[in-house]
Amino acid sequence: MKKILLLFVVCSFQTIFSQQVNQKDATMLRAIYDASLLNGKSYDWLDYLSNKIGGRLSGSTNAEKAVKYTKAELDQLGLDKVWLQPVMVPKWTRGLKEYAFMETGPGRTTTMDICALGGSVATPNAGLKANIVEVKNLEELATLGTEKLKGKIVFFNRPMQANLIQTFEAYGGCVDQRYSGAAEAAKYGAVGIVVRSMNLRQDDFPHTGAMSYGDLPESKRIPACAISTNGAEQLSNTLKLIPDLNFYFKQNCKVFPDVESYNVIGEITGTQYPNKYMVVGGHLDSWDLGDGSHDDGAGVVQSMDVLRLLKEIGYKPKHSIRVVLFMNEENGLRGGREYAEQALLKKENHVFALESDSGGFTPRGFSFDCDEANFAQIESWRSLFKPYLIHYFEKGGSGADIGPLKKDGMVLAGLRPDSQRYFDYHHAENDTFDAVNKRELELGAATMTSLIYLMDTYGVKNGFTQIKN
Amino acid sequence: MKKILLLFVVCSFQTIFSQQVNQKDATMLRAIYDASLLNGKSYDWLDYLSNKIGGRLSGSTNAEKAVKYTKAELDQLGLDKVWLQPVMVPKWTRGLKEYAFMETGPGRTTTMDICALGGSVATPNAGLKANIVEVKNLEELATLGTEKLKGKIVFFNRPMQANLIQTFEAYGGCVDQRYSGAAEAAKYGAVGIVVRSMNLRQDDFPHTGAMSYGDLPESKRIPACAISTNGAEQLSNTLKLIPDLNFYFKQNCKVFPDVESYNVIGEITGTQYPNKYMVVGGHLDSWDLGDGSHDDGAGVVQSMDVLRLLKEIGYKPKHSIRVVLFMNEENGLRGGREYAEQALLKKENHVFALESDSGGFTPRGFSFDCDEANFAQIESWRSLFKPYLIHYFEKGGSGADIGPLKKDGMVLAGLRPDSQRYFDYHHAENDTFDAVNKRELELGAATMTSLIYLMDTYGVKNGFTQIKN
Repeated sequence: MKKILLLFVVCSFQTIFSQQVNQKDATMLRAIYDASLLNGKSYDWLDYLSNKIGGRLSGSTNAEKAVKYTKAELDQLGLDKVWLQPVMVPKWTRGLKEYAFMETGPGRTTTMDICALGGSVATPNAGLKANIVEVKNLEELATLGTEKLKGKIVFFNRPMQANLIQTFEAYGGCVDQRYSGAAEAAKYGAVGIVVRSMNLRQDDFPHTGAMSYGDLPESKRIPACAISTNGAEQLSNTLKLIPDLNFYFKQNCKVFPDVESYNVIGEITGTQYPNKYMVVGGHLDSWDLGDGSHDDGAGVVQSMDVLRLLKEIGYKPKHSIRVVLFMNEENGLRGGREYAEQALLKKENHVFALESDSGGFTPRGFSFDCDEANFAQIESWRSLFKPYLIHYFEKGGSGADIGPLKKDGMVLAGLRPDSQRYFDYHHAENDTFDAVNKRELELGAATMTSLIYLMDTYGVKNGFTQIKN
Repeated sequence: MKKILLLFVVCSFQTIFSQQVNQKDATMLRAIYDASLLNGKSYDWLDYLSNKIGGRLSGSTNAEKAVKYTKAELDQLGLDKVWLQPVMVPKWTRGLKEYAFMETGPGRTTTMDICALGGSVATPNAGLKANIVEVKNLEELATLGTEKLKGKIVFFNRPMQANLIQTFEAYGGCVDQRYSGAAEAAKYGAVGIVVRSMNLRQDDFPHTGAMSYGDLPESKRIPACAISTNGAEQLSNTLKLIPDLNFYFKQNCKVFPDVESYNVIGEITGTQYPNKYMVVGGHLDSWDLGDGSHDDGAGVVQSMDVLRLLKEIGYKPKHSIRVVLFMNEENGLRGGREYAEQALLKKENHVFALESDSGGFTPRGFSFDCDEANFAQIESWRSLFKPYLIHYFEKGGSGADIGPLKKDGMVLAGLRPDSQRYFDYHHAENDTFDAVNKRELELGAATMTSLIYLMDTYGVKNGFTQIKN
């Protein structure tokens, strides 16, 4: 009887304790969301970054302005440390706007909007004109071979798959055309490539993005450009009427020697585990066509606001929480690599990292790269997030910039906003401030802050900083 | 031993059977989403409704064009029946664009963008000029009373509450100012009202919407207009500097006698329960300022596509499935009431109704007005919807137009899309086609079709059409 009573008392105590913990967490999350929605700074910061600075390609003057601006803003937050971490980054410039046309008849041309892919070589000064051949994928390219491709421009025209619900999956299924298309086509003697933009919407914006020549020697590199989805349809339809269509394009891009740039870092030093680090970040660089509001201005200002929101609600983290604004995600990942390398050199023990690099849309949840024990703990927080309509907790990838930090026992996470509109803007001229909704951005910042709060409070399981709940 | 074996066999059989059923449902949902995303018609229909017809206020020529257009489109779908259901609707017109200014100094005026609220009376021909008094709510109005309000214009300036996650809740907490503000202010001798737009964003669009004078006699009715959120801030700030500020406005709206209009209805007759009806619908009328793309062109074209998608995937429903495009939701609900009244007269047994009237944004799930037994069945379908990121299944309201159908044992549901941007466009000039994303609209149509499919397959519990699973 006594044993039963004792058991009952213990159970009750545990229940009450667990309810108190949950109530405290629920109150903290409410405070975080309130602070973000009523008094968030992310939107104002994004306004400046997008409208006062603009596109921030690595090595550009704007990228340096963005470094200075975000450092100065972090300096004003009363963090324990703010500093710049030097990193050498590639410098590629687009030069004068590209020009292209189809030769639709004797002396008759139809101009087409294109943009050079990031990292592409220029065309010859006079431009490049050749027969253009449409393919759907790299396999079809190989089938055509040198015989059919030598001296030609290759037009990669595989659309993103519209019936995939996760648009990043549709992107993943297409992006090989953009990334490897030129290197592969060059092997068969092609003289240039045109790639259908990675966009699920039919519109007139060409979308740039990274490409690679792999180990192709400089003399073999051929120019590569993107064409809008509407342009791709028009080109494809014209090819049906004029199979021996000539395509002309001229682009003026240039590669310069690497230049010094910086990751921007701020830290709230932990009260209990100052030498154990949790990172939240996004990337400060962007492509040059728009102002990089969704990719990844949103992630930058949300990450900055995570630390500010923690301070605003008066939460003193146990672990050291760092915001890291990574340089050069788009065309090199040098910032992410340098941060991880320095962490290793300095034996900094990173236990958790969270990246926001999927746009500033309504947050749906997170994707986690971690072991089962940690994932089980994270899943136990579902009900805390439910009032904020955060429901997506799945295992998967995290973010490109934090990827190099990966090690056993660490938890990596990526914010997962609604992705349906993301590729309407991705790497294009219309990725601008007006495409970001203030509330959606702030909900993202609050959702990230909430996860950081919970990870800090309950610690990483089976890792280096096991904290008993 | 034999018994145990038999039990084992029965259990296995049940498991296999239940898995087959689920596999069949999963396959059907996949077919529905594929058909909507790869071959949906909703976006093209919305393009026509928005760009070729435009705003469709009850009693307007555009509303009649929308009736003809949607009827003709339904006629082409090969449904079993398509017809128009006559309904008398109110006719209110805005007339010439409104004009307003603040008198900010001697002979100095600042013009303000306003719009008449739907149903408001006009100002006198020469306009209306008076001192303007700011209040936050109806209680503050009552506190000021006749002494402070007689002969004044009342400015209702309570913003939507930004830290509410569900924006419809924030709307519900504010809309009394718009709906009842004029009737209440008139009781204290006020001569007109200006209402802050129901919008969570700071921008320059005044938002209209329904208002009521209650039982106020015609001679006592005072004109009511809305001002944008930016305009409201400007007016409020000016009032701080000039407490005895004069405000002038002129509006030219007019009420006409009721006119005949129609609900547009199409039906696939059920194979097993032809006399048991499931309805899916939206409202065909819209306010006049924009083209009503989100409110509720989206719901109209999604509902039409539900029937088309069922046909496209070759599904023959057991129950009779009706699409109903209701007339006059915005300023009268006459269509919804007439449909329910006719159903009662004709003893049509309605067992389920679903409305889409919360915008064409990414669908998150549904809100259900039903009993526990039905809700439990619906919740058992959660996992079927998970691949489509549909997670929101909550008890709550459904839709205004289907509300009058409500009776015991019936299931009512409302599609719940992401609501963060909805009030940026609601009842305003910027509720236009370009604010709707094709994929998001199509995902909504597929999600609605999936629910109709499941409700038809498994039937309504404890209602009039119990079907054994």
